[in-house]
Amino acid sequence: MSNTKALPLIEAGSATAAPCCPPLTERPFTADEAETAAPMFKALGDPVRLRLFSAVASHEGGEACVCDISDVGVSQPTVSHHLKKLKEAGLLSSERRGTWVYYRVEPSVLAAMGKLLTAAPTGPTGPTR
Amino acid sequence: MSNTKALPLIEAGSATAAPCCPPLTERPFTADEAETAAPMFKALGDPVRLRLFSAVASHEGGEACVCDISDVGVSQPTVSHHLKKLKEAGLLSSERRGTWVYYRVEPSVLAAMGKLLTAAPTGPTGPTR
Repeated sequence: MSNTKALPLIEAGSATAAPCCPPLTERPFTADEAETAAPMFKALGDPVRLRLFSAVASHEGGEACVCDISDVGVSQPTVSHHLKKLKEAGLLSSERRGTWVYYRVEPSVLAAMGKLLTAAPTGPTGPTR
Repeated sequence: MSNTKALPLIEAGSATAAPCCPPLTERPFTADEAETAAPMFKALGDPVRLRLFSAVASHEGGEACVCDISDVGVSQPTVSHHLKKLKEAGLLSSERRGTWVYYRVEPSVLAAMGKLLTAAPTGPTGPTR
């Protein structure tokens, strides 16, 4: 239930979302922040990976193994490959149980990514700043 | 102030966020939904583009031209190239004023992307991990 290593966003150790970075609208990202956050966006930037991610994220119990995912139109090895990529990006964690590896969304990482995209509560006039 | 075409996420015509897709945690994405949403994530999946995006998003008035952005460590043509990519992905709109093209974040698209990443209020205990 918790090989929660490799989660670049939440090294701070908070259980809730402790993103690496402020909302994108708050101030320009530093190079380091961008290097940390970009791989997570990139991981979701492929249609097949995005489908797989949402298949895991919406699966019963919030986790799924390759054996649960068969309707994305790609082979099982390809599914495994993409799930591994999502894990490397810190978006999924995994746990082996018997023959299968079960993948689970890291809700804190998801929340942190969502926060990055939170527009400042201003609107047409922009983030004021 | 409003060449708001090419915004795949908000074709429904609502001024507020009308995402193409439900939250990633709600149900598996269809192929069409994934094809629509993935390019936006991909556009933010490059560190330089991510920095440029946040530079525009956080700039005074919520808009910026290439002339405003000089501290990302890449040449102006490269900046222009990446801003165009972000525009093609629907994340920025642009307007030419005099010699310069001004880019502005599409808040509704940002909000829609944020919504995709909103964890369903179920999970183990929601965003608490």
